[in-house]
Amino acid sequence: MSKLVIVGTVAFDAIETPFGKTDKILGGAATFIGLAASQFDVDSAVVSVVGGDFPQAYLDLLKDRHIDISGIEMVKNGKTFFWSGRYHNDMNSRDTLATELNVLADFNPVVPQNYRDAEIVMLGNLHPAVQIGVLDQMDKKPKLAILDTMNFWMDNALDTLHEVIKRIDVITINDEEARQLTGEYSLAVAAKKIQNMGPKYVVIKKGEHGALLFNGGNAFFAPALPLEEVFDPTGAGDTFAGGFAGYIAKTGDTSFENIKNAVIYGSTLASFCVEKFGTERMLSLSQDEIAKRLKQFKDLTQFEIQLT
Amino acid sequence: MSKLVIVGTVAFDAIETPFGKTDKILGGAATFIGLAASQFDVDSAVVSVVGGDFPQAYLDLLKDRHIDISGIEMVKNGKTFFWSGRYHNDMNSRDTLATELNVLADFNPVVPQNYRDAEIVMLGNLHPAVQIGVLDQMDKKPKLAILDTMNFWMDNALDTLHEVIKRIDVITINDEEARQLTGEYSLAVAAKKIQNMGPKYVVIKKGEHGALLFNGGNAFFAPALPLEEVFDPTGAGDTFAGGFAGYIAKTGDTSFENIKNAVIYGSTLASFCVEKFGTERMLSLSQDEIAKRLKQFKDLTQFEIQLT
Repeated sequence: MSKLVIVGTVAFDAIETPFGKTDKILGGAATFIGLAASQFDVDSAVVSVVGGDFPQAYLDLLKDRHIDISGIEMVKNGKTFFWSGRYHNDMNSRDTLATELNVLADFNPVVPQNYRDAEIVMLGNLHPAVQIGVLDQMDKKPKLAILDTMNFWMDNALDTLHEVIKRIDVITINDEEARQLTGEYSLAVAAKKIQNMGPKYVVIKKGEHGALLFNGGNAFFAPALPLEEVFDPTGAGDTFAGGFAGYIAKTGDTSFENIKNAVIYGSTLASFCVEKFGTERMLSLSQDEIAKRLKQFKDLTQFEIQLT
Repeated sequence: MSKLVIVGTVAFDAIETPFGKTDKILGGAATFIGLAASQFDVDSAVVSVVGGDFPQAYLDLLKDRHIDISGIEMVKNGKTFFWSGRYHNDMNSRDTLATELNVLADFNPVVPQNYRDAEIVMLGNLHPAVQIGVLDQMDKKPKLAILDTMNFWMDNALDTLHEVIKRIDVITINDEEARQLTGEYSLAVAAKKIQNMGPKYVVIKKGEHGALLFNGGNAFFAPALPLEEVFDPTGAGDTFAGGFAGYIAKTGDTSFENIKNAVIYGSTLASFCVEKFGTERMLSLSQDEIAKRLKQFKDLTQFEIQLT
């Protein structure tokens, strides 16, 4: 088993969907990534920052999942990062109602000493300079560094983003962002161009349309499970990343064949995430339920045409 | 091997894409369906209508592919159905520049006597009353009747559409049409509702996002191949349907497992169709190329997670 370092937000979310509305609940990229990765019982640490208003109960909840939280700085007189959004009826688009950076504005990540030798590093969506700061603290180049990012950094910090992209092995990015980053409409061409920027593996997330993995001349596709009901999409992308990183940390295998499996595990966990508000479903998830859903994924995609 | 009856348009298309422009070339749903099905060397007949302006060379081209054309009526003093469209830069949306029904306006399909016992009937997109007319001419209920339709008939002939949907076994429909037909956003729920309308199998086409197959509690997903270049999407949906129907006609097997394979063959042939204008690519396609692409589909989707 490999050590896994996760950097990203630990935050409050307030969510409105056609099905209901929450007060401030536990959210943040690193939270979703950590909870998903913890399904594999890996040795992981979350590096983040929260304010004095962040409940000890939420930190305990991460600790209870065997996540090292010594890298979560608490700024006593600061406020925790807060995001609020409202999903439209189709659940595929949303309006951001509020983004309060608070303590995140001055976040200087510090990787705990005993995780600086981690083989797997998962850089959740944050300013690319912060992501670089984490890579710089590692004793040596990790076996696999995984980057999540978004269009906001393409608009506002493109040069720094290119710097971090040069240094990582896997990028997870959504389809529109892949197009924006490369100026190419074809995802196959976009993935080639992104590989030329540095990462060996390019994972393009297409939401309800699944995820594509590119590596050299190889391509792999994982569909999203056709769900009867999507209750709350918040955190699905991060849960995908966490399942992906957690599976690789557990197996220690970074071959294309195993990265394919990691994509399937990521999709599987993401399919649970959207069933309830926020982190709720991830906290009640059993290994048996995961195994059943993996079987659904297998049934959904496997066929038996004999090739000559 | 089963006999296959195909009903649909045989037409002229004029196409503009960002890559170029055609004069009037061979088009029409039944043309694309027939050419795709002919890859399986099945005993098929096209039922359609053309005008006196339709070149004998085009008819010969179908005959050369062993397609029975005795059911293609020629109205000497009429003009052939004509469609013209312009694709936008993303190739996912298009403007219709012209639709001239011409001889199609009074089309009364006549199924050749020696195909009235066909086991497989493929009803290409046409007025649902015409589709019913074909079913009524069959000696008995076919083993598998496949229906393609579109939103236009939902807007303009919904009751008749429901009548034909009640009588068929497989419907192929795109995602937005499935939503319109059922009023459900979730494709899983929409597919259930459509099954309640009659068809055992529901195939939802999502264009560049692949195709979903639903049958009772079973679901199967075939991705679209991530192509570097889509040259002309015209006929891709019909080519999918033709590959689907042709494979079933060849194998005579209507089990869920085999219908899955039919979806893969349909997707495979559709991935070729878009590589050149109109029917061009389908006419130059070799069995070896098809086998290679099937292998690409297998590589794209198969994974080896051991389930416990």
